[in-house]
Amino acid sequence: MKISAVKKLFVGSPLATAQARHERLSRPSALAVFSSDALSSVAYATEEILLVLILAGTAALTFSIPIGIAIAVLIAVVVSSYRQTIFAYPQGGGAYIVTKDNLGTLPSLVSAGALLIDYVLTVAVSVAAGVAAINSAFPGLYDYRILLGVFFIAGIATVNLRGLRESGNLFALPTYLFVVSFAGMLAYGFVRWLAGWEAPPPVSEVAVSHDLTIFLVLRAFASGCAALTGVEAVSDGVPAFRPPEARNARIVLAWLGIILIVLFIGITFLAHHYHVVPRLEETVVSQLARMVFGGGLLYYEIQVVTMLILVFAANTAFADFPRLAYFLARDGFIPRQFGTRGDRLVFSNGILILGGLAALLLLLFGGATHALIPLYAVGVFLSFTLSQASMVRRWVLRREAGWRWRWPLNALGAGTTGLVMLVIAVTKFSHGAWMVVLLIPLLVALFLMIRRHYADVAHQLSLDNYDGPPPIEHTVLVLVGDLHRGVVAALRYAQALSTSVKAVYVELDPDRTQKLEEKWGKFGLGVPLVVLTSPYRSLLTPFLDYVNHLLTLGENHVVTIVIPEFVPARWWQHLLHNQTALLIKGALLFHKGVVVVDVPFHLR
Amino acid sequence: MKISAVKKLFVGSPLATAQARHERLSRPSALAVFSSDALSSVAYATEEILLVLILAGTAALTFSIPIGIAIAVLIAVVVSSYRQTIFAYPQGGGAYIVTKDNLGTLPSLVSAGALLIDYVLTVAVSVAAGVAAINSAFPGLYDYRILLGVFFIAGIATVNLRGLRESGNLFALPTYLFVVSFAGMLAYGFVRWLAGWEAPPPVSEVAVSHDLTIFLVLRAFASGCAALTGVEAVSDGVPAFRPPEARNARIVLAWLGIILIVLFIGITFLAHHYHVVPRLEETVVSQLARMVFGGGLLYYEIQVVTMLILVFAANTAFADFPRLAYFLARDGFIPRQFGTRGDRLVFSNGILILGGLAALLLLLFGGATHALIPLYAVGVFLSFTLSQASMVRRWVLRREAGWRWRWPLNALGAGTTGLVMLVIAVTKFSHGAWMVVLLIPLLVALFLMIRRHYADVAHQLSLDNYDGPPPIEHTVLVLVGDLHRGVVAALRYAQALSTSVKAVYVELDPDRTQKLEEKWGKFGLGVPLVVLTSPYRSLLTPFLDYVNHLLTLGENHVVTIVIPEFVPARWWQHLLHNQTALLIKGALLFHKGVVVVDVPFHLR
Repeated sequence: MKISAVKKLFVGSPLATAQARHERLSRPSALAVFSSDALSSVAYATEEILLVLILAGTAALTFSIPIGIAIAVLIAVVVSSYRQTIFAYPQGGGAYIVTKDNLGTLPSLVSAGALLIDYVLTVAVSVAAGVAAINSAFPGLYDYRILLGVFFIAGIATVNLRGLRESGNLFALPTYLFVVSFAGMLAYGFVRWLAGWEAPPPVSEVAVSHDLTIFLVLRAFASGCAALTGVEAVSDGVPAFRPPEARNARIVLAWLGIILIVLFIGITFLAHHYHVVPRLEETVVSQLARMVFGGGLLYYEIQVVTMLILVFAANTAFADFPRLAYFLARDGFIPRQFGTRGDRLVFSNGILILGGLAALLLLLFGGATHALIPLYAVGVFLSFTLSQASMVRRWVLRREAGWRWRWPLNALGAGTTGLVMLVIAVTKFSHGAWMVVLLIPLLVALFLMIRRHYADVAHQLSLDNYDGPPPIEHTVLVLVGDLHRGVVAALRYAQALSTSVKAVYVELDPDRTQKLEEKWGKFGLGVPLVVLTSPYRSLLTPFLDYVNHLLTLGENHVVTIVIPEFVPARWWQHLLHNQTALLIKGALLFHKGVVVVDVPFHLR
Repeated sequence: MKISAVKKLFVGSPLATAQARHERLSRPSALAVFSSDALSSVAYATEEILLVLILAGTAALTFSIPIGIAIAVLIAVVVSSYRQTIFAYPQGGGAYIVTKDNLGTLPSLVSAGALLIDYVLTVAVSVAAGVAAINSAFPGLYDYRILLGVFFIAGIATVNLRGLRESGNLFALPTYLFVVSFAGMLAYGFVRWLAGWEAPPPVSEVAVSHDLTIFLVLRAFASGCAALTGVEAVSDGVPAFRPPEARNARIVLAWLGIILIVLFIGITFLAHHYHVVPRLEETVVSQLARMVFGGGLLYYEIQVVTMLILVFAANTAFADFPRLAYFLARDGFIPRQFGTRGDRLVFSNGILILGGLAALLLLLFGGATHALIPLYAVGVFLSFTLSQASMVRRWVLRREAGWRWRWPLNALGAGTTGLVMLVIAVTKFSHGAWMVVLLIPLLVALFLMIRRHYADVAHQLSLDNYDGPPPIEHTVLVLVGDLHRGVVAALRYAQALSTSVKAVYVELDPDRTQKLEEKWGKFGLGVPLVVLTSPYRSLLTPFLDYVNHLLTLGENHVVTIVIPEFVPARWWQHLLHNQTALLIKGALLFHKGVVVVDVPFHLR
């Protein structure tokens, strides 16, 4: 009962199925709920660009401006393209569903694999960046960054196992606080700059290790594309909007795009004009905030708000991953356990797996955002591309209203994101993108293998053309090593199962056999005792030979093997008993026509 | 079948009980068999003395001479004392047996605990020293010392799992090669020294960290006492000698004592006169051999022979540990599994545990001999003391021939070894001896706890005053989640067990219930279907409630729960099935009156 008490403490009491309900979101609430993932990437996207450019020296940092503009344009294209998806999928258009609908199974599995990886990385990257925000403000915590990260993940997972309502109010606070705080910081920073304030010149002691090549600029661009992760969230969640759902969702997506562009471009420009150089121990946003506000309370507010929105961003993956896993499990591509809700109405298995994998990634990559980024964007842009290519096919095939101007818009989106995906895969390949490039086909192969297995099993279990099972000839054997109360109880139980019960004893020492036979006459309940000799002192071999012999006697013979098993009062006492029962069960697991039954004898 | 093939490859085919036999050993063979453990300590004992003295500077190394002489005297005393044990225990007098006989259970358990620890350390120390011998000759292997050590342990364990006959011929080679090679090296070394050869002066760049106190000298003496480990082996193995066993054994023990003293004193003296200073990367014996022979083939021969005898020394523990474990298991102080021989006539469990623990020690202590030594000698001298104190009590109580002069001899032995044990425990306490001082009482407590548990179980199982088991009222439930061929087969099996079979279905979705009921009419074999509702989507809770309800119906009610279980063709497919069966089994394990039966359905 103790385990269930612990579970109740952390996870809460079960909820009835009838308690499931959905809240409909107003536009401002929906913006809060669906934007945290996308907006939070502002906290690290600029830094990732600068981290690549700095390899070619501080002068190369100027390139962050054209790269920032290119990414802003990319955001505009992707947002416009996804507004089409909302129009076509008012019931919610996740990449897996949309791709499956329009391009078929295989592409949809590619997009599912990419998305699953994406969600795990969203958690790992967001938490790593959130911890970095805290570490920048409190450098003493730097050594505990991995522990802090794992702690955050465990906390978010626990909250989700309890079942978090997608409450607009809960999300509104961190999201709007973030938008207002960052907008304020940018505005104040620009005013100070325009007023003629001079930032200190950049530290020039940076070791230049690379030439400023086009490849390096493209790599910096690829890193910055992390800013786009999460913009698809609105189109996934259309049914959660108040009616008219599609119209409201499209408006919210446009808002999101504009806010995202403003914040991202603002930070990138300001970081450049304030001569911010990326450093290991302090984030770019933290350096910027420190210079703009000159430290103080407002600086700490920026750091806390950054951490908060990043934690909320990680949290969205805890809703998305289990939902996608549910769809995949329903279609038979991943184990069925992901398709059942736990007793708090959430998909507990998905939450646990996601939390575990993200924590593992954090450990493996030392809790460093920049180490995880190369793995991140490939999957995101692959699902963008597939999702929008699906939309092109849909417009062209269905020819719904406006298809003539809608399909080129989606084609532009698909083409652009596809191109960006290639750029990311190539420029980031040796930095970690190869893992994702390798993992996605492996995942797809796994999905297909699982699906084939389930289909095969379903076929084997089908009742079509089934004549019913053959009649059974049943023999019950009780395996005994001695005669005591536990064995007598097992004999009595065996007699309740069948009229043809035999006890089997493997003789290791003839003296003991004689003693056993003497006791048997008095307490053996009339069950015949078969004694098998064992020249090699093996318990197993003579017994298995005997069972096999019995099985050959009739075609539909089933042998039930009853093993008396002790159930001790304390767990450690298990080590002192029952090794034989385990051995026998292991040996007979794959034996057709054999059923092993432990009859528990409860020790005080 | 694959696992058994692997086992056969490494362990060999089973041996019949009748194949067990004992070879009787001539005196030279017996010396070879029983001396490797004791003689091998010559390879590191001098070095351990020097390693402590060097802390007070190179000048302090002179103290190795008086310490060496003291240890030689100690060897003479212990050997004389053990010759009495042979006289009294011609059937073999291990410390556990002798102590149990004369001092009773509790002291015998103390000595058993000390011996078990001693055996594990014999393996770890001998292998570490053997690897050090190899590393001294081939410094390139230094980085692989732990790996090499684990590899040696695995090798020795494998050989012992196959069942190693204590063949005199097998042991004669390394033992006599070792004795002859070392005697030759010492003789040649002394001749060169007497002929006026001057060894290079000692390197004086040693950092002096300690004053030369009496405590430090005692600590050096305590370290050197490792030379005595293993001298008890002859008295343990008296029955293996040719008749007259006792007389031959006493002669062999005297030989062993003389050889041990000569080699140990010789190395200690020569190391001093050759100005050998202990170093991390090269053993003292290796430095000495290098100087005596000036490198070359003879040098390498010494290193290889040293390694060989150390491996054989480790090997003896693989015979001793399982044998002691067998005695302890027979007396009910450790789990019964240690009391059964494997199919190669060896006590496989003891061998595996010993090898595992020794490898673990090697890993934890970085494969360094000197780090393990402080743990080693406390247990050895504790068992010496207890064993000889037992002999004193025996002589005084029994008054057998010669008791008047025999008991003072054993009392001298017990007193001396007891004093040495205290010196070791005190001077080495903070260097690791505390672990052993702590572990021995813990082991004794564990032995007593296990013994009490077995006694308690035997009492609960006793058939004295037993009136036989009560009659059983039997209900069989088949837990179903669907109806397919696997379920139908399980239903048919359940019908073979009882006439009162019910199928139980927990409803999570009313639509599915209706579909199930439709199929049930056609394929349900007439078994009534009980549908339980589950408002919280838990499978378990409603089902457990129902089972508990059935159990309250009658006092001797037994409920057998039949669960159809898939047995997939491949192991990984297990992950895709059977979670429910596992859950149910776990939940019902401690439920009295419930038997859980998996009915396997074999998938192709």
